[in-house]
Amino acid sequence: MEQELECTGTMVLRVGYRGAEFSGFAAQPGQRTVAGEFERALETFLRRPVELTCAGRTDAGVHAVSQYVSLPITQDEKSLRGSRVFRGLTAILPDDISVRGIYHAPEGFSARFDALSRSYRYRIVAGEERPVLGWDHTWWLRSELDDAVMHEAAQTLVGEHDFKSFCKASSAIDKPTHRCVQRISVGRTEELGQEQVVIDITGNAFLHSMVRTIAGTLAMVGRGQREPGWVADVLAACDRTAAGPCAPAKGLTFVGVDYPEGLLEPWK
Amino acid sequence: MEQELECTGTMVLRVGYRGAEFSGFAAQPGQRTVAGEFERALETFLRRPVELTCAGRTDAGVHAVSQYVSLPITQDEKSLRGSRVFRGLTAILPDDISVRGIYHAPEGFSARFDALSRSYRYRIVAGEERPVLGWDHTWWLRSELDDAVMHEAAQTLVGEHDFKSFCKASSAIDKPTHRCVQRISVGRTEELGQEQVVIDITGNAFLHSMVRTIAGTLAMVGRGQREPGWVADVLAACDRTAAGPCAPAKGLTFVGVDYPEGLLEPWK
Repeated sequence: MEQELECTGTMVLRVGYRGAEFSGFAAQPGQRTVAGEFERALETFLRRPVELTCAGRTDAGVHAVSQYVSLPITQDEKSLRGSRVFRGLTAILPDDISVRGIYHAPEGFSARFDALSRSYRYRIVAGEERPVLGWDHTWWLRSELDDAVMHEAAQTLVGEHDFKSFCKASSAIDKPTHRCVQRISVGRTEELGQEQVVIDITGNAFLHSMVRTIAGTLAMVGRGQREPGWVADVLAACDRTAAGPCAPAKGLTFVGVDYPEGLLEPWK
Repeated sequence: MEQELECTGTMVLRVGYRGAEFSGFAAQPGQRTVAGEFERALETFLRRPVELTCAGRTDAGVHAVSQYVSLPITQDEKSLRGSRVFRGLTAILPDDISVRGIYHAPEGFSARFDALSRSYRYRIVAGEERPVLGWDHTWWLRSELDDAVMHEAAQTLVGEHDFKSFCKASSAIDKPTHRCVQRISVGRTEELGQEQVVIDITGNAFLHSMVRTIAGTLAMVGRGQREPGWVADVLAACDRTAAGPCAPAKGLTFVGVDYPEGLLEPWK
């Protein structure tokens, strides 16, 4: 018989991972997932079953440098030293998962429901030059991109809209598809000694494959295959077939979450 | 019978590669090397034997984002379109080698002997937080580093010195070990969403394992295991056993070469 745990607080972890070897974040029987690895590590460390909540589920192959996960904890667990939990989990977790921070949050806190916004970065190495050190977290698009035109075209997505056109069709059935995009910018940056086009996007929440479909759609504009105004037509269509292709998972990184100020307290 | 090639110019390629899967740059029978892959690709493309020169031989596991290689070419080869050579080589070369630029240089030019200086960057993720996206090109040192103290200590290396203490012992036998370090700086930077300590060094040329031994030595100062003044003692000792350990190859990247102005002409 399982004993009921009396939880009086919440453990929050800021975590990073490389997506390549995971079947996404969400636990799935028989698959290697980020949640599966975390639950195993936490169960080993806390010696009890755990169930995790995360700020945003990422698909297979998608990376994260600043994902947040939360779980309810008991009074005894709250009294552990944070540095001990940090070191213990780091030692148990595999090489492609990193614990980056540990926080206390009030009882009832949820990494998912308390998040105000999520941010993603999509990286593209554009042109004939093959990516060097960025090989595993960029999309190598073998043609030039006009990032200024992409930025302009992207602005039509800012605000509260029905993003059904940018949602994986099978995931949009009978589900709300309105989301609010707070910011989106497209520009060039040099990283690891090589120029990239980066798409930075922040929104209250995202639909399945939404950022990657936006990236694939904007890339068509950047290559001159569509006019910038086409993105507004795609949005208005509320139909996945109107948009461009879903860009490869390896180019996408979950880069951050905003929580209301004061909810997360560094766990020393 | 081999036909003598009449060469009237030089092809110069700016290239990048990831070091993990190579036994270093220099061709070695039975090993996968960067030079070996380049020679094979160039021989396939030019349909003749080639011999390459590079700006700086890198060891097994060391990366490059801006290495230069050169080879003498015939009048016929000079008349090829650069974009065709670029695309042809990119298609033939493996995934971990990138052609980044193609140039004409005068007859007799050597990527090695005409180089004025070489630059390297050594990246360290310091502390208990495991590297995320930088996993394959950083050294994860599980302790904190004082980068300001490392920077100060490093300045004693600037100038012309006998760097024998920083040279792999077996490579220093009966060979000149004087080199000139033009600049060295140590600082913090954020890359791929994670803080790093980076050592940037430029010199006329480098001995075998010299940058990695400097990195390993400075890391001991940064961890507080040695006083900053110890680096001057190490330099003065002219003895490899006086220095710190050779830092791991994966943290080192060859980042650039300087050539006299006007020697390299973009090959259109």
